[in-house]
Amino acid sequence: MATKLHGGFFHSTLRKLQEQNVQIHPHNLMYPLFLVENDDAVQPIPSMPRISRLGINEAKKHLEPLVADGLESILLFGVIETLPKDSNGSSADSKENPVIRALPKLREWFPNLLIACDVCLCPYTDHGHCGIMNETGIDNEASIRRLADISISYALAGAHIVAPSDMMDNRIGAIKQALISHGLEKKVSLLSYAVKFASSFYGPFRDAAKSAPSFGDRRCYQLPSGSKGLAARAAQRDVEEGADMLMVKPGLPYLDIVRQTKDMFPNFPLFVYHVSGEYAMLHHAAANGALNFEAALKEVLTSMRRAGADCIITYYTPQILALIKAKSL
Amino acid sequence: MATKLHGGFFHSTLRKLQEQNVQIHPHNLMYPLFLVENDDAVQPIPSMPRISRLGINEAKKHLEPLVADGLESILLFGVIETLPKDSNGSSADSKENPVIRALPKLREWFPNLLIACDVCLCPYTDHGHCGIMNETGIDNEASIRRLADISISYALAGAHIVAPSDMMDNRIGAIKQALISHGLEKKVSLLSYAVKFASSFYGPFRDAAKSAPSFGDRRCYQLPSGSKGLAARAAQRDVEEGADMLMVKPGLPYLDIVRQTKDMFPNFPLFVYHVSGEYAMLHHAAANGALNFEAALKEVLTSMRRAGADCIITYYTPQILALIKAKSL
Amino acid sequence: MATKLHGGFFHSTLRKLQEQNVQIHPHNLMYPLFLVENDDAVQPIPSMPRISRLGINEAKKHLEPLVADGLESILLFGVIETLPKDSNGSSADSKENPVIRALPKLREWFPNLLIACDVCLCPYTDHGHCGIMNETGIDNEASIRRLADISISYALAGAHIVAPSDMMDNRIGAIKQALISHGLEKKVSLLSYAVKFASSFYGPFRDAAKSAPSFGDRRCYQLPSGSKGLAARAAQRDVEEGADMLMVKPGLPYLDIVRQTKDMFPNFPLFVYHVSGEYAMLHHAAANGALNFEAALKEVLTSMRRAGADCIITYYTPQILALIKAKSL
Amino acid sequence: MATKLHGGFFHSTLRKLQEQNVQIHPHNLMYPLFLVENDDAVQPIPSMPRISRLGINEAKKHLEPLVADGLESILLFGVIETLPKDSNGSSADSKENPVIRALPKLREWFPNLLIACDVCLCPYTDHGHCGIMNETGIDNEASIRRLADISISYALAGAHIVAPSDMMDNRIGAIKQALISHGLEKKVSLLSYAVKFASSFYGPFRDAAKSAPSFGDRRCYQLPSGSKGLAARAAQRDVEEGADMLMVKPGLPYLDIVRQTKDMFPNFPLFVYHVSGEYAMLHHAAANGALNFEAALKEVLTSMRRAGADCIITYYTPQILALIKAKSL
Amino acid sequence: MATKLHGGFFHSTLRKLQEQNVQIHPHNLMYPLFLVENDDAVQPIPSMPRISRLGINEAKKHLEPLVADGLESILLFGVIETLPKDSNGSSADSKENPVIRALPKLREWFPNLLIACDVCLCPYTDHGHCGIMNETGIDNEASIRRLADISISYALAGAHIVAPSDMMDNRIGAIKQALISHGLEKKVSLLSYAVKFASSFYGPFRDAAKSAPSFGDRRCYQLPSGSKGLAARAAQRDVEEGADMLMVKPGLPYLDIVRQTKDMFPNFPLFVYHVSGEYAMLHHAAANGALNFEAALKEVLTSMRRAGADCIITYYTPQILALIKAKSL
Amino acid sequence: MATKLHGGFFHSTLRKLQEQNVQIHPHNLMYPLFLVENDDAVQPIPSMPRISRLGINEAKKHLEPLVADGLESILLFGVIETLPKDSNGSSADSKENPVIRALPKLREWFPNLLIACDVCLCPYTDHGHCGIMNETGIDNEASIRRLADISISYALAGAHIVAPSDMMDNRIGAIKQALISHGLEKKVSLLSYAVKFASSFYGPFRDAAKSAPSFGDRRCYQLPSGSKGLAARAAQRDVEEGADMLMVKPGLPYLDIVRQTKDMFPNFPLFVYHVSGEYAMLHHAAANGALNFEAALKEVLTSMRRAGADCIITYYTPQILALIKAKSL
Ligand SMILES: [Zn+2]
Ligand SMILES: [Zn+2]
Ligand SMILES: [Zn+2]
Ligand SMILES: [Zn+2]
Ligand SMILES: [Zn+2]
Ligand SMILES: [Zn+2]
Repeated sequence: MATKLHGGFFHSTLRKLQEQNVQIHPHNLMYPLFLVENDDAVQPIPSMPRISRLGINEAKKHLEPLVADGLESILLFGVIETLPKDSNGSSADSKENPVIRALPKLREWFPNLLIACDVCLCPYTDHGHCGIMNETGIDNEASIRRLADISISYALAGAHIVAPSDMMDNRIGAIKQALISHGLEKKVSLLSYAVKFASSFYGPFRDAAKSAPSFGDRRCYQLPSGSKGLAARAAQRDVEEGADMLMVKPGLPYLDIVRQTKDMFPNFPLFVYHVSGEYAMLHHAAANGALNFEAALKEVLTSMRRAGADCIITYYTPQILALIKAKSL
Repeated sequence: MATKLHGGFFHSTLRKLQEQNVQIHPHNLMYPLFLVENDDAVQPIPSMPRISRLGINEAKKHLEPLVADGLESILLFGVIETLPKDSNGSSADSKENPVIRALPKLREWFPNLLIACDVCLCPYTDHGHCGIMNETGIDNEASIRRLADISISYALAGAHIVAPSDMMDNRIGAIKQALISHGLEKKVSLLSYAVKFASSFYGPFRDAAKSAPSFGDRRCYQLPSGSKGLAARAAQRDVEEGADMLMVKPGLPYLDIVRQTKDMFPNFPLFVYHVSGEYAMLHHAAANGALNFEAALKEVLTSMRRAGADCIITYYTPQILALIKAKSL
Repeated sequence: MATKLHGGFFHSTLRKLQEQNVQIHPHNLMYPLFLVENDDAVQPIPSMPRISRLGINEAKKHLEPLVADGLESILLFGVIETLPKDSNGSSADSKENPVIRALPKLREWFPNLLIACDVCLCPYTDHGHCGIMNETGIDNEASIRRLADISISYALAGAHIVAPSDMMDNRIGAIKQALISHGLEKKVSLLSYAVKFASSFYGPFRDAAKSAPSFGDRRCYQLPSGSKGLAARAAQRDVEEGADMLMVKPGLPYLDIVRQTKDMFPNFPLFVYHVSGEYAMLHHAAANGALNFEAALKEVLTSMRRAGADCIITYYTPQILALIKAKSL
Repeated sequence: MATKLHGGFFHSTLRKLQEQNVQIHPHNLMYPLFLVENDDAVQPIPSMPRISRLGINEAKKHLEPLVADGLESILLFGVIETLPKDSNGSSADSKENPVIRALPKLREWFPNLLIACDVCLCPYTDHGHCGIMNETGIDNEASIRRLADISISYALAGAHIVAPSDMMDNRIGAIKQALISHGLEKKVSLLSYAVKFASSFYGPFRDAAKSAPSFGDRRCYQLPSGSKGLAARAAQRDVEEGADMLMVKPGLPYLDIVRQTKDMFPNFPLFVYHVSGEYAMLHHAAANGALNFEAALKEVLTSMRRAGADCIITYYTPQILALIKAKSL
Repeated sequence: MATKLHGGFFHSTLRKLQEQNVQIHPHNLMYPLFLVENDDAVQPIPSMPRISRLGINEAKKHLEPLVADGLESILLFGVIETLPKDSNGSSADSKENPVIRALPKLREWFPNLLIACDVCLCPYTDHGHCGIMNETGIDNEASIRRLADISISYALAGAHIVAPSDMMDNRIGAIKQALISHGLEKKVSLLSYAVKFASSFYGPFRDAAKSAPSFGDRRCYQLPSGSKGLAARAAQRDVEEGADMLMVKPGLPYLDIVRQTKDMFPNFPLFVYHVSGEYAMLHHAAANGALNFEAALKEVLTSMRRAGADCIITYYTPQILALIKAKSL
Repeated sequence: MATKLHGGFFHSTLRKLQEQNVQIHPHNLMYPLFLVENDDAVQPIPSMPRISRLGINEAKKHLEPLVADGLESILLFGVIETLPKDSNGSSADSKENPVIRALPKLREWFPNLLIACDVCLCPYTDHGHCGIMNETGIDNEASIRRLADISISYALAGAHIVAPSDMMDNRIGAIKQALISHGLEKKVSLLSYAVKFASSFYGPFRDAAKSAPSFGDRRCYQLPSGSKGLAARAAQRDVEEGADMLMVKPGLPYLDIVRQTKDMFPNFPLFVYHVSGEYAMLHHAAANGALNFEAALKEVLTSMRRAGADCIITYYTPQILALIKAKSL
């Protein structure tokens, strides 16, 4: 019937009853931050226009207006330049690690801010891979023990959330067990990069995190992009091992997987990582006049929420907070 | 794992991400009102403590503080005492009908209030049944034509929503077609009492609406309480015929049917009628000290929302608005 | 099409093919019984009209006509008055415990009766909580070991079913493991109170079981009423730990959860506890003339079965057996 | 856990709670009967050992002991030998048609027996196809009008169920409309051969019904065996057009389709036709010692019920009633 | 278990059993072509680098190598420059329309090529909207009659598929009925742009098709991007009205909707339109070094197939056919 | 609408888009082979016409033309006549076991052939049961340790797949753990007879495998045919314990279970065993003229694929490869 879609929308109370849970509130955003050793550094990242690596003092200046505008959570990545890289990734949780040093300060400066830390070895190993290597490749058992240790260090330093990004089997169980052993399991959430695909959209990020591997190619255990079955089994495994929250990465090319993951685990908050290549596509297409930036950004965010994302990790967080403030979102 | 349910709840931002869409906002409530002919009447209903039938002037006084407290929608029932009852239910849409007379005034007094009208013949027929009778019982074709006419009268008088409560086959199609013929299909919503069970919990209502049948027993086409299959097919039928919104009635003993209906039709706002017998159970159990009234009321509302209700039609609306205002809900 | 619901029902063979598995047979009922130390006691419970705590000799008299009328299963609760309450709940499985003493007699007197025992610490601890306390609250590990010990005592005394009602994490796994260690896993069923909500409908029961806590409020690990997600995860956990059968409690305000649980675990018998507050609502509403008792009771039972309950635990079991006997159900 | 499947089955009340709705009661069986013109004929069918075409007097003798053993329903096929076959299938509903003649007698002799009539043209057309032909093939519109007329004739002669077996588009709507026009829609059920596959298992039936086409091959609109999608769309179409009950045919090679159809339409009784080729496979394999007949028959029936069949149409009905009587089923 | 994902993949036969239906074959691609009046024109489109509008003679030259490389289907858009635009869109099906003129030639030149035609009014109306306007906006009834007429013209000129892109209610039913009236329903497929969102990714296309509206903004009845519910209801409506195949548009930001649509209608081939804005994002990001073009294109195609697309309509078809030919896809 | 099923099929590219994944390719077939001790033996099996037990030299001759015709995988069963049977089934993995001896040769002769080995004790125990017995029956723990040992022996001898057919609880976990301990978990697949019903269709097989038990009746832990619930729980258990692939056995009477299993575990290759009794039914019915053998065989294969089978284990493999070769399948 020609009109049947329109009889239920004409009054504001009716529209509230039709709402579909796709709005963007500040708690639906998580802002990634690259922290460097030099506390006063500001290092622009060429492949990610408008994004810089920051020292903790500059991070404070950068975050203050955003927190004032409603920012509720951040995701920290450490980037080292002078600290040593070795086979064990020792700098991942040394006292000088920029994330370890920043956590107590951030907790003090921004007492309500929810702080997550990416947990991986690749920024700290001399070979640039995400685990400990032995003669036949990655040593899974040694790697997950190491990741559990690093997670505990971040938790003790003040992280609310630890987020292992490596995709190795069983690291969720290992970290959860370590949290329990330290009595931290009710004070620290475990956010799993459960469904992380091997993707061509990560290029600029490796530039930002200085984490390209020195040899080899496809790193870690990332999923092949055609396999929705492995995506389902990976999420299932991490839930069974104790993940509190799940992530799908990248975003736009995997919205069907976002839907699948939310449908399988409706009771677990779902994060989507709007990755650097997606950031770049939007930027360059708008810069070349092919898209209206603001309209396209809104559409992308709405689409991620519609597909099932509870929280979007995005470099565009400052722009989005400004749109919320201006009530144009 | 002993702790796996607790790692994701300890920070307020995390709790926002775990929200389950069970809060009660004013737009989740619809308040039923019984309107009588005498504009200044206040007629307490013995079987429903604290509820009265009202004349339009008293209704205005009664509604003003509620609208001030946030009330967003009401559901009108007409009750006649001196107007004639006949086989055709002529008083249902005569100029003197209390609902017809009240609609323009209510629209003027409360311009943002969403106003629904119950549509049925039983309060206006001399036999008290919901349709036009012929020698073999209810004449379905004649009845649905009559219901369509009454719906148009209410719509033209100012109703935003017409809500046929009779459960006769095909009355949704008949009313929708009439709305289209009058160019009203985008200005008037059709809320179907799609899943209305024959229930022992309606007793006090019949007292309120003065609508007990003069002969016969099980009125109209109400569904047998054991049949989830017929409930599914009735909702399906009404959606196919053009319903904009659906209702399940009663509430508490049919929460599984609320879930079933919302799962089948997630894109249609779902109403639940918290009926008079449920009102009485809560009242009398609390009055006898077996329940804490406020705690039990909150639990019932939460349960209805959890089961899938978008809007709850309840006589307790004033008390709930007060709880919302006091931020205790 | 107006008639499409009616063409398949006019012949008795057709109606059999349309049956929806909502009838009440005796095996669909479980009758709760409160046993006290004094074998000849009859203690009426003021907040639950017509229900009494009984000594075992009176229980025998009470059960004999019911078993003759078809009663197939009971659920035993122990209530102590002179036996000591301590921090370890020692009286839960002492030789003098009324349940321990009653089991061999009941097995002898009623050889075909299926006997379940509620397993919890709260009736036997001096603080009235469901577990063993340490300085920071409930000690989960110590508590589940204690619950496993009690379960074995009941099993050895003759219980067919042990039913832990505490909702602590992992007590199902602990009890199942204990049953296996004692070679009892094929002779004793484990019925989990898997989905037990913190509810305002438990008030009269605490009176009956003399189990109100001496301090603190919301006891144990009961679920928040708005969370269907936690309900799903709790049932999943218990199934994975070895539960043979599941329970949802309370009944009427959680029929959507009954449906959800049955849909998730169609192959596990599902029990619904029609709790004391529900008992009271029906009683008082009928006593005040707002409901027809028998019609409302039938509707409630039918609704529970329709929602997916295989067995209903209800204080109205005697009245229902009488209705079955009179072929009016 | 090794024992987790066994803890819930050891007591008879527990087993009742585990029942899975796969038993065979008499109302789960429908017995096909081939009726010929000569009232006293008994014509054995060579390709279906132990099955004969019968005249009505012999049918009476054959049915009497079966009805005594509990037989509840039959399905009638007419077979003509001397009556004329023409392009219009005129003998399908002439007064001399053996089904038309038998219906009033069967209703009188067996007043509680539910009687269904197969409705098709192929036994009565000179070309042996299921519809009216025009120059380009089957004339769909003319065919469904003819099928509606025949259905009315059978209904007026006493059939409780009319069962069109032709699979032409829209014949369900046409017959339903005709039933409504004659005021028969609440007295006659419409059982659609909704999901009938083109199958190699129909061979012996064509012998029984003398209905092999004189030219052409794949008759009517039967579905290709690989297409579960068309099976779903065909059932959907017939439900929308007003079918009261659905059939899948054949049985064993299509049990997944039985499941799919029952899952899609849980509220419509589902019939499965255990066809002549299946009858033959069981017979010959048992006769050659490869199978135990009784065990295999029970397994097949159980499998059909497990897959979702409410009623099984089978030539083995007499043997099954005997097994029920002997309590060995 | 660390290794559980790897035990089933090590042998080529095992990998075949794990295949996930995500490969790209030529029949999974449809190539859009903009046809202009001047048969020898080649008009590059500035906002879509490497894409040109073509006259039919140039189209022939352009298609010949692609068909040789395996191209199986194309989608035609007409673009007019000198032909008149009027309120009725008369040039849409005039004899001079470039699509009407091209169809017989394309059928002759490429006898195995499957040819689809976009059907809309916006390229031919003077106001640039997709329908016939009356004083209050779009006249739905008049518009769908006009669209049905145009569809018949294209079908008679040789189109295998007509693809209405306007999203007006009921145009699928109107076109299907027209096809049936002309005896074309088994020779012409109806591909519905059933799920077409109002999107910011259409900009360059409007340049290509010269179809920006002269006034007003959001054209036609396109869906709001947040509403998965309306997407479901729109697809349902078109299936019920007779669509043979469905489309979702745009692609990447709506992959969850692709999944939803395929899950709802698994038996209908699903097309995804990889739109001009997506084309531009990939192009500009690669041109600026942020992405590897070939890797990103493959990932996007794989993602669309994984989400449920049977056929991808993409401007990159020539590059993909080259990759298939080089066996690098 | 009469024609709505036909508008999408008329062009070969359209038909490719409608494909339903039901074709039979060689990788969809697995051929069972019974190997005896005498390398040159050919022992016809009376109850399975045309099938023989073979010595390895005869097996080579038998397989060569089949591999040439495309055969991709086989399933080996060992049958012993002179080797000892004892309580431990020692001959199952002795050096003289015909399967152990054949594996290296088959790997050498047919380097691309995928080779699976049935793993069970029943052909090798003196009592003919599938496990190690103790005084109370089967000793589950001892049995699964023994099965794990045998699996390792077969794996080391060259098996690509080990397929335990015994249905004992937890043998999948035991075998997987053993494979991991030997570093074989990425080189050997674990195919679980996860859903194996106690069936009357196994008779001829026991003749072929000489494995009828010497006492007792229903062997091992096979499932009751009426229980789809236990079938679901058995598959779930095996997936959780590490199965790489699943099997349903028998085929035709359990196609609904095939569907259920594939729906639950879409990402695990699903095998169906077309068992000896099914083989016999088809053979004898065709031999007696009741069925066309080739048409019925094709229909059965298509039905198994449609129900969800990725691979069919069938004694008819040679005939099917011939049909594929002749392009008549
Ligand atoms: Zn890494
Ligand atoms: Zn009424
Ligand atoms: Zn307790
Ligand atoms: Zn026929
Ligand atoms: Zn347009
Ligand atoms: Zn065995």
